Amino acid sequence: MGTAATGGGDDRPLAGVASEHKVNLSARRPFVEALRTGLAETFFPDDPFRGFGSRPPAARAWGGLKYFVPALEWAPRYSLGKFKYDLLAGVTIASLAIPQGISYAKLANLPPIIGLYSSFVPPLLYAVFGSSNNLAVGTVAAASLLLASIIETEVPPEENPQLYLQLFYTAAFFTGVIQTALGVFRLGLIVDFLSRSTITGFMGGTAAIIILQQLKGMLGMKHFTPKTDLISVIRSVFQYRHEWKWQSAVLGICFLLFLLSSKHLRKKRPNLFWVSAIAPFMVVVIGGIFAILVKGNEHGIPIVGDLKKGINPLSISQLTFTDKHVNLAVKAGFLSGILALAEGIAVGRSLALIKNEQIDGNKEMIAFGIMNIAGSFTSCYLTTGPFSKSAVNFHAGCRTPMSNVVMSVCIMLVLLFLAPLFKYTPLVALSSIIVVAMIGLIKVKEFCHLYRVDKFDFCICMVAFVGVVFFTMVIGLGASVGLSVIRALLHVARPNTCKLGSMAGGEIFRDVRQYPHARNIPNVLVLQLGSPIYFVNAGYLRERILRWVEDEENACKIDGQDLQYLVLDLSGVSSIDNMGIGILVEVHKSLDRKGIRVALTNPRLEVAQKMVLSGYIKDTIGEEWVFLTVKDAITACRYALQRSRSKEDGEV
Amino acid sequence: MGTAATGGGDDRPLAGVASEHKVNLSARRPFVEALRTGLAETFFPDDPFRGFGSRPPAARAWGGLKYFVPALEWAPRYSLGKFKYDLLAGVTIASLAIPQGISYAKLANLPPIIGLYSSFVPPLLYAVFGSSNNLAVGTVAAASLLLASIIETEVPPEENPQLYLQLFYTAAFFTGVIQTALGVFRLGLIVDFLSRSTITGFMGGTAAIIILQQLKGMLGMKHFTPKTDLISVIRSVFQYRHEWKWQSAVLGICFLLFLLSSKHLRKKRPNLFWVSAIAPFMVVVIGGIFAILVKGNEHGIPIVGDLKKGINPLSISQLTFTDKHVNLAVKAGFLSGILALAEGIAVGRSLALIKNEQIDGNKEMIAFGIMNIAGSFTSCYLTTGPFSKSAVNFHAGCRTPMSNVVMSVCIMLVLLFLAPLFKYTPLVALSSIIVVAMIGLIKVKEFCHLYRVDKFDFCICMVAFVGVVFFTMVIGLGASVGLSVIRALLHVARPNTCKLGSMAGGEIFRDVRQYPHARNIPNVLVLQLGSPIYFVNAGYLRERILRWVEDEENACKIDGQDLQYLVLDLSGVSSIDNMGIGILVEVHKSLDRKGIRVALTNPRLEVAQKMVLSGYIKDTIGEEWVFLTVKDAITACRYALQRSRSKEDGEV
Repeated sequence: MGTAATGGGDDRPLAGVASEHKVNLSARRPFVEALRTGLAETFFPDDPFRGFGSRPPAARAWGGLKYFVPALEWAPRYSLGKFKYDLLAGVTIASLAIPQGISYAKLANLPPIIGLYSSFVPPLLYAVFGSSNNLAVGTVAAASLLLASIIETEVPPEENPQLYLQLFYTAAFFTGVIQTALGVFRLGLIVDFLSRSTITGFMGGTAAIIILQQLKGMLGMKHFTPKTDLISVIRSVFQYRHEWKWQSAVLGICFLLFLLSSKHLRKKRPNLFWVSAIAPFMVVVIGGIFAILVKGNEHGIPIVGDLKKGINPLSISQLTFTDKHVNLAVKAGFLSGILALAEGIAVGRSLALIKNEQIDGNKEMIAFGIMNIAGSFTSCYLTTGPFSKSAVNFHAGCRTPMSNVVMSVCIMLVLLFLAPLFKYTPLVALSSIIVVAMIGLIKVKEFCHLYRVDKFDFCICMVAFVGVVFFTMVIGLGASVGLSVIRALLHVARPNTCKLGSMAGGEIFRDVRQYPHARNIPNVLVLQLGSPIYFVNAGYLRERILRWVEDEENACKIDGQDLQYLVLDLSGVSSIDNMGIGILVEVHKSLDRKGIRVALTNPRLEVAQKMVLSGYIKDTIGEEWVFLTVKDAITACRYALQRSRSKEDGEV
Repeated sequence: MGTAATGGGDDRPLAGVASEHKVNLSARRPFVEALRTGLAETFFPDDPFRGFGSRPPAARAWGGLKYFVPALEWAPRYSLGKFKYDLLAGVTIASLAIPQGISYAKLANLPPIIGLYSSFVPPLLYAVFGSSNNLAVGTVAAASLLLASIIETEVPPEENPQLYLQLFYTAAFFTGVIQTALGVFRLGLIVDFLSRSTITGFMGGTAAIIILQQLKGMLGMKHFTPKTDLISVIRSVFQYRHEWKWQSAVLGICFLLFLLSSKHLRKKRPNLFWVSAIAPFMVVVIGGIFAILVKGNEHGIPIVGDLKKGINPLSISQLTFTDKHVNLAVKAGFLSGILALAEGIAVGRSLALIKNEQIDGNKEMIAFGIMNIAGSFTSCYLTTGPFSKSAVNFHAGCRTPMSNVVMSVCIMLVLLFLAPLFKYTPLVALSSIIVVAMIGLIKVKEFCHLYRVDKFDFCICMVAFVGVVFFTMVIGLGASVGLSVIRALLHVARPNTCKLGSMAGGEIFRDVRQYPHARNIPNVLVLQLGSPIYFVNAGYLRERILRWVEDEENACKIDGQDLQYLVLDLSGVSSIDNMGIGILVEVHKSLDRKGIRVALTNPRLEVAQKMVLSGYIKDTIGEEWVFLTVKDAITACRYALQRSRSKEDGEV
């Protein structure tokens, strides 16, 4: 037996059968072109400048400028009709920006005014450079807490509030630089490593911690732990229980009920969304009036305290780049920046999808970067496009980034004239606003969905959640991203292989596990390989292929048959490296000794090219054993088998 | 237009045409089974215990024992006939082990006797636990230099030779523990991350550095730099040029010429391999006699110096686990251990392949681990299966690991009776042996092959080479592995997509770039996706698919046609995660608004399962738009198009 593999003379399997279609082995891309395409696909998957080449230079320059400054795209076509919508949306988000700005600044242990400053300058810049029509710019809870938790470890805000604040500016500066660089160098793929599962778990965990932390405000406490893990927070609540104030608690519960019912109303009647949108502002106003009336501060209802009048002072001179703290600022800036990008881009994309618009991730990064750099110069800390605000903007009917300008102007007016009024805002009002905002971020339904669809995704999500809740935010994020990367690598390291059986009278070949009625092909084993063949998985694939062959041989023995051909279906192999070809050679040699012939079907362009270049096709397999379809390969195998059998019979 | 996507009533594309074969969407594996299979494929790709289940318990236990102690497999069937071959091979490799042992110990700045000790105990253990019939155990140059370069940074051998030696033992102990653990926990895939390109480059760079370092011995110098980079080594040679001894140099050149011509002879006449095998031993003997005769030590020919008689003393008590040095030992042990594994397993595999034997990587790791742990207790440092020695063993006709036992006995005899004689070995003899052994490791041909076949593999190789030569060995290794991992991740992050055209009268569908004569299909765009769809590449794939659609729409416009269907061929998609399904939903929504219908073909088992579970197939695509083949999908599209057109005509 095994004649087909060892036979000397005319070894061509189809010397007689005309094979209509052949694998194109001569298609080859020159290295420079392949490199150019590879780089372009890696860094410019959206190919922003396509179609530019054909235009005159002036138009090209204008097009390029419009690409980098999207405002030039929409501003000339802007109309009063659109402005009406943007005005309404802008005022609505401004009413949300004031309580959120103050709240999140308190969450980060910053002076509350910084939160208002941060809603003035960055939105203006985003309106010029941003490509999303729906995003509303502002501070976010998770990144605020993350920044605070990192910076607090080395500079406690109570001991050195000035340096603490400076480090926030510096971190925002680095955030901006990193975001711009990622955008310019088209490295958006770093953000891709934050999977949705990671973000869901991380946001959920952060929200849970933030809600627990609000017990401080709700109970009117003065002392609290700077740590963010569950156990420290709970312990802290009970450690200072003599500070609990029932007045705060009662007021807080009233506010909570009000906010929750406004949220409920929005779910029931989507067109009354504006009630829930201005509810936080109402809480601040009502709370403030109440605090003035009852002199809350003296009766167990702590208030925000002094807010200076006037717009953002410059803060360039406050950026600190001293050796001692620069590492801290870079770390805080990098982590919060990536997180902010992931949130902002995801929010922008999901809203754009509803309106069928396009968002350019890399352009967004540059816009975020510019607004954070400018923000760090003008007393702002990290800003991005938070979900809550952007959703309100969207539902209020915004048309262009002009709504951000409107919000910005509103905040400016507040800063210039009304800021001191907000000093009476009770802290408990802010806490209840934060709690209600955060409840929606613990997406229990999403957890369940993940559990049902993909257990591993669920693990990744839970690692982030548990890591944040029981350890620190950085640990939760890191462990979850690490697990995701290991998973991605494992999928490269252990690619799927499956045995194909024939269906539809030998026309179609499919996985026998998936299609139990697919039939075995006598004397031939057809294996489908998936994903790239690489140094990482080459060894595994060799073992796996040889094991498939062995199993098949055993199965054949029982049937009294003999395995004579192995057909490798390479349709799913998107690329191969030098070591991958090496193992195919090894498999070929091993099987050759057993008298089993190897045939290939349908190698893709890159794969075929490398196989030809390395001499694998010519020296090892033989060009006549490469087929375009599995069917061709099997026809050839049958024909060769028949010939060798009739030869044997003749010899006998 | 766009009726197909928006049409209300009977949207089933094939309501009329009978689709013979359907995608099996109900095939589902329970989670526990999927997890079990997944773990088994990841950690037991070779499935060592298959076929055990059916045997009685005693046979199973005996089989298991034989699996872990391969000697039980071959020893009972051992015969005198085999022993004759093993004896010859064993004596031959012993004659090589003596000069190599002494040389590599000198390379690592260890007392030369340690090199001989290391060729006594480990081979005995490998003979019992090893699964390769061809591997000859001993010390290796690259790992010796790597260990020395790591340990020297903190403990210079001149200052504290005792501690330096102890750290070598401790590192060997950790190497053993790590190797055993990798084998037991089936983590051989860590070794897979050292690609052949990395090893080729690293070995080449190391060989180049080692050759340059031998200038010390060749020129009879006493002082030299402990650093391993090119510039330090060259500078060191000229800095101490007053130490140069012409006598050493002349003798060295003679030895070099002798060794090189013996090597040349082996290439010309393969059956005279034993000449080159014993040539190093001849050089040691002749050199020794010469040194005695001319009193070399007093005339510019430095010799090895005292070698104690007696077999390995115990060294358990010398292992140091103090806080200060344990990290260093773990680092050195880990890096050299992984490197040694990669070399040993690769050598074992390539030799086994020639004889058509099987090597079990995980079993080999355990064997290497046991021999290194035992070695660290008996005054040995790191050992593995070096290429040069194993090749000689192979060519000398070894049959079983018994040849290692023979070598071990020879070395024992040398240690007991002849060791003091080797004190007269001139250092220049050792240097010339090392140089000749290393020359073969700079594989210029392999570099050229890599350059021709795969430019990126060539880069990985060159990074390792340049890193080792100009920086340190750890930097070279780390940069190269890092680049390999980034490449693997990039391939997951930027998977191939291609447009399919129809061939063979609409029977076969292939990449239009590869097969330029493949024809466009009117109104339909067929895209082939490759590799898993993951959080890493989900965003990219969405952009890329939408860009393909846009390009196709533009192309259609020129032809006066209209793109109506997108068929995604999922044959090559080996798995999908939650985010991957998310982007498919987004693509579907985007295209739905443009009036383009999405159809899927041939989702694989795992992919189909997740799509069903997540509700994607039922709620988004519709089960009737999932097809088994591209041909079916296109038939359905055509039919639906025809119907919608005739409906329009009717309405008009």
